[in-house]
Amino acid sequence: MTDLAALLQDIAGQMRSAEDRGKVADYIPQLARVDPGKFGIAVALADGTTHHAGDALEPFSIQSISKVFTLAIALGRLGDSLWNRVGREPSGLAFNSIVQLEYEQGRPRNPFINAGAIAVTDAILSGHQPREVLGEILHFIRVAADDPDIHIDEAVARSEQATGHRNFALAHFMAAAGNLRNAPDLTLGTYFHQCAIRMTCMQLARAGRFLMTAAGGARMVSADRVRRINALMLTCGHYDGSGEFAYRVGLPGKSGVGGGILVIAPGRASIAVWSPGLNAQGNSKLGREAVELLARKMGWSVFG
Amino acid sequence: MTDLAALLQDIAGQMRSAEDRGKVADYIPQLARVDPGKFGIAVALADGTTHHAGDALEPFSIQSISKVFTLAIALGRLGDSLWNRVGREPSGLAFNSIVQLEYEQGRPRNPFINAGAIAVTDAILSGHQPREVLGEILHFIRVAADDPDIHIDEAVARSEQATGHRNFALAHFMAAAGNLRNAPDLTLGTYFHQCAIRMTCMQLARAGRFLMTAAGGARMVSADRVRRINALMLTCGHYDGSGEFAYRVGLPGKSGVGGGILVIAPGRASIAVWSPGLNAQGNSKLGREAVELLARKMGWSVFG
Amino acid sequence: MTDLAALLQDIAGQMRSAEDRGKVADYIPQLARVDPGKFGIAVALADGTTHHAGDALEPFSIQSISKVFTLAIALGRLGDSLWNRVGREPSGLAFNSIVQLEYEQGRPRNPFINAGAIAVTDAILSGHQPREVLGEILHFIRVAADDPDIHIDEAVARSEQATGHRNFALAHFMAAAGNLRNAPDLTLGTYFHQCAIRMTCMQLARAGRFLMTAAGGARMVSADRVRRINALMLTCGHYDGSGEFAYRVGLPGKSGVGGGILVIAPGRASIAVWSPGLNAQGNSKLGREAVELLARKMGWSVFG
Amino acid sequence: MTDLAALLQDIAGQMRSAEDRGKVADYIPQLARVDPGKFGIAVALADGTTHHAGDALEPFSIQSISKVFTLAIALGRLGDSLWNRVGREPSGLAFNSIVQLEYEQGRPRNPFINAGAIAVTDAILSGHQPREVLGEILHFIRVAADDPDIHIDEAVARSEQATGHRNFALAHFMAAAGNLRNAPDLTLGTYFHQCAIRMTCMQLARAGRFLMTAAGGARMVSADRVRRINALMLTCGHYDGSGEFAYRVGLPGKSGVGGGILVIAPGRASIAVWSPGLNAQGNSKLGREAVELLARKMGWSVFG
Repeated sequence: MTDLAALLQDIAGQMRSAEDRGKVADYIPQLARVDPGKFGIAVALADGTTHHAGDALEPFSIQSISKVFTLAIALGRLGDSLWNRVGREPSGLAFNSIVQLEYEQGRPRNPFINAGAIAVTDAILSGHQPREVLGEILHFIRVAADDPDIHIDEAVARSEQATGHRNFALAHFMAAAGNLRNAPDLTLGTYFHQCAIRMTCMQLARAGRFLMTAAGGARMVSADRVRRINALMLTCGHYDGSGEFAYRVGLPGKSGVGGGILVIAPGRASIAVWSPGLNAQGNSKLGREAVELLARKMGWSVFG
Repeated sequence: MTDLAALLQDIAGQMRSAEDRGKVADYIPQLARVDPGKFGIAVALADGTTHHAGDALEPFSIQSISKVFTLAIALGRLGDSLWNRVGREPSGLAFNSIVQLEYEQGRPRNPFINAGAIAVTDAILSGHQPREVLGEILHFIRVAADDPDIHIDEAVARSEQATGHRNFALAHFMAAAGNLRNAPDLTLGTYFHQCAIRMTCMQLARAGRFLMTAAGGARMVSADRVRRINALMLTCGHYDGSGEFAYRVGLPGKSGVGGGILVIAPGRASIAVWSPGLNAQGNSKLGREAVELLARKMGWSVFG
Repeated sequence: MTDLAALLQDIAGQMRSAEDRGKVADYIPQLARVDPGKFGIAVALADGTTHHAGDALEPFSIQSISKVFTLAIALGRLGDSLWNRVGREPSGLAFNSIVQLEYEQGRPRNPFINAGAIAVTDAILSGHQPREVLGEILHFIRVAADDPDIHIDEAVARSEQATGHRNFALAHFMAAAGNLRNAPDLTLGTYFHQCAIRMTCMQLARAGRFLMTAAGGARMVSADRVRRINALMLTCGHYDGSGEFAYRVGLPGKSGVGGGILVIAPGRASIAVWSPGLNAQGNSKLGREAVELLARKMGWSVFG
Repeated sequence: MTDLAALLQDIAGQMRSAEDRGKVADYIPQLARVDPGKFGIAVALADGTTHHAGDALEPFSIQSISKVFTLAIALGRLGDSLWNRVGREPSGLAFNSIVQLEYEQGRPRNPFINAGAIAVTDAILSGHQPREVLGEILHFIRVAADDPDIHIDEAVARSEQATGHRNFALAHFMAAAGNLRNAPDLTLGTYFHQCAIRMTCMQLARAGRFLMTAAGGARMVSADRVRRINALMLTCGHYDGSGEFAYRVGLPGKSGVGGGILVIAPGRASIAVWSPGLNAQGNSKLGREAVELLARKMGWSVFG
């Protein structure tokens, strides 16, 4: 087996010196200030060991990666009835596109585009206070990561609240179609806070271990459900760059505009990578290149 | 390990007695006549053994499953330059949709929707006669299956030629956008013939072995390329039912309107299933259910 | 010349007894309660006389007909710079469609679809309080109608505020695209109030006289601008039923979901009709039939 | 009354010296060769007189202006049943767009976009030979113009046949939807020939007189039908530039990519203008500017 620790150092070194680092998201003012030179990577293996390189111990805004955790919570609470409100197909469109909602009567294509994730958060929220639900999400992540030191960045949440008109449009559109149970303000307030959770690569890699489905041990989520979440990550986890990620990396993953990606090598590893610059599809440019290198060297592609 | 032979018999039995069998494709007259009661399944394992049940030795029209073989041939001949003409993303639309072509200047989203497959065939055709290219496609499949007894059904090809107006629309649209090198009639004539190849489940399962990437042995296609074809099958192999197939089965696959599906369990098995009735997305209804059962029992999902 | 008074009585009689009256708008609770049996029609001729029949003296909610008045005010204040924010083409889509906004970067197709009208109201609002702007709109209409007894129905405005999620989606989408200068709540609050203006057919017919461009007299709006507003009403005044209205009636008009239509016979007449039941495109069913009869009998089509 | 002859000379002079002349259509090789400096204008008044200026006696390819004549013929032969196959609404899309066909099951929005015009030609063709139908179209135009010297340019027809892939796509798409009665080749062969009719401005202005509906005299088309054709020209005659034409000119018109426009001032005049350079919507740039000037000076807008 390849020496993983050395490989991660090597990858971090390559990525540190990359010239074209993509473009840091600028539509949320708080995120626009992040240093584009940052790069971190962490791997939690099925054997329980963890490895990391670069800025892997520095927290960043996980943004849409939070959708994986809320999906797991929503499936746990609602089971398959969740699928009445959101589909399971790639949309072939940008993360914040609204045209599909109009063509399909307010039912988002999948839980990883913004509209779908807002519907999932709305589903969890039903009958609860935002504070309670955010507490539950944090609790789930802290238990998964086995680390209580994971928090919400209020400044980022407020920044997105003030500028998130596109998400307000999605929420109101779903409300008009009868696919939102709570007031848009309430659901979006919760959603913006879940996206503002800050984690380090190390914390995120550990938090993703529940998706490895290694045999044995107590499971937070059933093996069957884990498989399905992974399938959704592979087909829909990178918006209209999902096919490209599958083609190049060959592993399920979920990206966030903060520049993080959580990637799962089923049975083998949970990987977190962070580089703030994004590509045209809104996914971390160097993050994807790093996990492509890693997966190739380790032979981790699910496709053979 | 589960007794595969018994499992296949059990699955074939269940599928034989299923009441809701979907709807046989009626837009190609020749296909509309197929008995909806047929069901066959065959598995070629990495250990070289093959197993089958039901009507697995009866030939059927592979239709769009042929796109996997032409993609492999095109990548072999053109390499990555093929991707200048066709994308690698799920389209989120029906197999014969034309709207994406208009929005994206005549470049099909992926090689498995009709427009993309026509572009791939056109790419192989360049500078050759349809007869030569069809000979090459048949040769590739016969070698892959290790069986010379695989042929084109001329009546089906002619039937599609006469009624395939939607495909003519796609080809002419691409020609108008400068994304077709040959006359639409020539490219479509070749395309309709490749779709009219007849194979049994057993032949198809054997022909799919080159996508298993088991270690050792001479390879028809490099391991790297096999992984990528599998990734495309998983994200795009079932049109706007691709997410659902990944969610339920967890394996790369490619369906055809003849009711067949080729499914790959990387490193483990090549599976062919056939049941003529289709679901709303144009994929074999019982075929999908059968491989879902098989993959679950065998623990073959790539997602853990 | 036909006896107009008798003709209006005759038309009102026919419409009163019509069986298929369309469907009263139900998405605004306050509007859903209106008696579908109502029918009124009023005509203000270029010679200064007015004529009416049926429930022409009963006030109804003018809804989108208000867009004609706000457009006139906006053009008066901003001139052609208004067209930087909204187009002049029919959209070919429903009144509340959002897909065109996404395809065209948040610039609505024309000022008579909801998105465009919201942009127009937002343009008037700039630097003013909603109360001031609503005062100006009412003042304009009262002067045009020469009648101070025209008011806003607060209950309808509040009802729409509470249920107008689709309009909130449009406003937030434009805000995200940088095509809204005020907070969505502020602009929409104004917009919902302008739509909640109540007028009788007689008041509305009189208020529309400024669009007749008869020679002589002081003009509220220049002849050139009047022609252009009429052109927009003809091509865009009935959403995706605009072509049908032009084909059948041959006159510029603007409909509202309250069941009213304002129709202009240039140089000849300003016509207001009211019947609460709507057709599939959201335009008054009997209202259109009534003006079709009227225009035909009077020979008022602009098309010869 | 303004001196029309002098006004036409003045307009022709202005247009001759215009610097930005638009862009000559280059997708049909035969059209691309036309001298962009040409400009002609002709007016046939209701009093029977004709006036012209510039290159008004030089023939050009009428292209889509032919759609007005085939619509008149089709309505004469099929009556309102024609509307089962084609709609009457502006499409809001480019002249050769195919997306609307997919969203609306192969029924074109109106008879003036390419798909709609192909459906109209197909409707006339039913049960006849292309040669007969083309003879009938020429006969109609020659009678309307009172001039037997109007012909089809075979070289243009063949040029379009060879390069008209987009139109083939539209025809095949409609065939797939069951909205074409003849083989696409047959219908398109007829369509390309009708578009290749050559006429001078003077001939075209005279041919358009049947749409003036001046009182008295034998009519080729009933007054009622004339009004409706004019309504369609106003709402749909310039593709996604129809609203702009109505807004600026205020008259029904139909443009062709050859640079011609036929414009009707109901009850007053039939106008033909020709300038080969096109604007972004595919309509003659200077042609529109010229009729805008003319209509303004003459006070011919239908909108007051």
